[in-house]
Amino acid sequence: MDVGTAEAVESAGPDARTAALYARDATCRGLGITLDEVGTGRARMSMTVSAAMVNGHGTAHGGYLFLLADAAFSYACNSYGPVTVAQAAQVTFLAPAAAGDELTAEAVERARSGRTGIYDVTVRDSAQKVIAEFRGQSVMLAGRPQAG
Amino acid sequence: MDVGTAEAVESAGPDARTAALYARDATCRGLGITLDEVGTGRARMSMTVSAAMVNGHGTAHGGYLFLLADAAFSYACNSYGPVTVAQAAQVTFLAPAAAGDELTAEAVERARSGRTGIYDVTVRDSAQKVIAEFRGQSVMLAGRPQAG
Amino acid sequence: MDVGTAEAVESAGPDARTAALYARDATCRGLGITLDEVGTGRARMSMTVSAAMVNGHGTAHGGYLFLLADAAFSYACNSYGPVTVAQAAQVTFLAPAAAGDELTAEAVERARSGRTGIYDVTVRDSAQKVIAEFRGQSVMLAGRPQAG
Amino acid sequence: MDVGTAEAVESAGPDARTAALYARDATCRGLGITLDEVGTGRARMSMTVSAAMVNGHGTAHGGYLFLLADAAFSYACNSYGPVTVAQAAQVTFLAPAAAGDELTAEAVERARSGRTGIYDVTVRDSAQKVIAEFRGQSVMLAGRPQAG
Repeated sequence: MDVGTAEAVESAGPDARTAALYARDATCRGLGITLDEVGTGRARMSMTVSAAMVNGHGTAHGGYLFLLADAAFSYACNSYGPVTVAQAAQVTFLAPAAAGDELTAEAVERARSGRTGIYDVTVRDSAQKVIAEFRGQSVMLAGRPQAG
Repeated sequence: MDVGTAEAVESAGPDARTAALYARDATCRGLGITLDEVGTGRARMSMTVSAAMVNGHGTAHGGYLFLLADAAFSYACNSYGPVTVAQAAQVTFLAPAAAGDELTAEAVERARSGRTGIYDVTVRDSAQKVIAEFRGQSVMLAGRPQAG
Repeated sequence: MDVGTAEAVESAGPDARTAALYARDATCRGLGITLDEVGTGRARMSMTVSAAMVNGHGTAHGGYLFLLADAAFSYACNSYGPVTVAQAAQVTFLAPAAAGDELTAEAVERARSGRTGIYDVTVRDSAQKVIAEFRGQSVMLAGRPQAG
Repeated sequence: MDVGTAEAVESAGPDARTAALYARDATCRGLGITLDEVGTGRARMSMTVSAAMVNGHGTAHGGYLFLLADAAFSYACNSYGPVTVAQAAQVTFLAPAAAGDELTAEAVERARSGRTGIYDVTVRDSAQKVIAEFRGQSVMLAGRPQAG
């Protein structure tokens, strides 16, 4: 399978497309973010907070909490086939996380209208405590037909 | 100067406090995010998008764009002394960035009311093109007196 | 029952508290917004778009769509007893509404942490089409003990 | 001047277009919201909080604060000519307002990219105290050419 082009990714089946996206996802691979599950309009990813992800206050940097949620959002909204990107996102931080915590982000589609989608992502620690709630607004890029 | 404790950071002057925060900021140091300027209620930070910061679509991961903005926000809202954390944030992505781009995030305070603050952060590339607009809501932690 | 004071409202049972809040809610009563259902952490309200709620483009003013969602959010987060107010909110408009449309806003609690709560509100028309998605962040006011 | 159609509004000059939009704006006219100033990418509107705009806690309903900001946002983003609508908005409530308060909403454009715009609106009372900060994301409707 040639996954070197976006066109190849789109014409492949959902599993192959997702695998190709992940294979090229230097961010997730580099940070050890795993794609645990993906389906139409949803995805679940996990990340262990490393010592390198801590801020000056000694807790997990909010930027990494957002990044994990944003990654799950991205796989959920790209599950339909056409290239889809984040247009906006909002996050509320509910509890701090610490180095060593294993976090899971669960993204589910909330609504779709035309090329716009709304996805909710909940970030939890291994005790199922909610660390952050994220809502993303996606847009499918024009001229990118739905893959078969 | 002992910068090993939060108490020491708060009782130090603004420059020493900021330096101590940055010295312990594994995230910013690890990603090469530099603190170019900081003042009361404002901060400017820079980051070069590395090959490790790219997503499956081949552009800079939105999570890293947010992280840069969030970092500038954090230094701006901690400039007053008391430990201040992000409670919520919203970001709009206006243009993609690519590996090699040098990005700058400029954070300015927009409003304060009690322990809550609103900060706006604009992320630009080296051609001054706006990549993302971020707005963060901060909260000063209770029981942390303003440093002298 | 004396519902003339906030103290009386808080010490009353949930149904009496809600009824007292609604009795004094000039906005909802004036706009014909009905409180169809309320429970712990949730509420459902309805509003018919009147000719007076239209903007210059001939569609329902987004401000009124937000207001309906915000009202449902308010009854949901005040269902616990202590006076609770909106601190921030975000809305995405997915489809226009027109004069004569009967809209329903359904608010559910998504998360709580300390005195902060997150509530999601979906606004639908009578055909169950989603018109808007709203997320609100609430805060319980300090020094207002939970009612018995 | 025939202002009965959107086409007429778009082909008119900026002042005539704005006047026509306002003439048909049942919401703003009905609530006594005045359009004090409008320019390219900006607008200022005012509203006096009436007794009918109060919630069950005795303060101005957040929905009306949002509505005022949203209205100013709308005139600012429609100042370019093509029909432009709100796609999303975020508001932070910083201080309560009361019946009788005269509020002003000042909308300014923050960024534009393609058909998307970002506008910031600050709502102040007559003592210039900031009541709310609003950020809106607009989208120009496709197939609506810029008026001459």
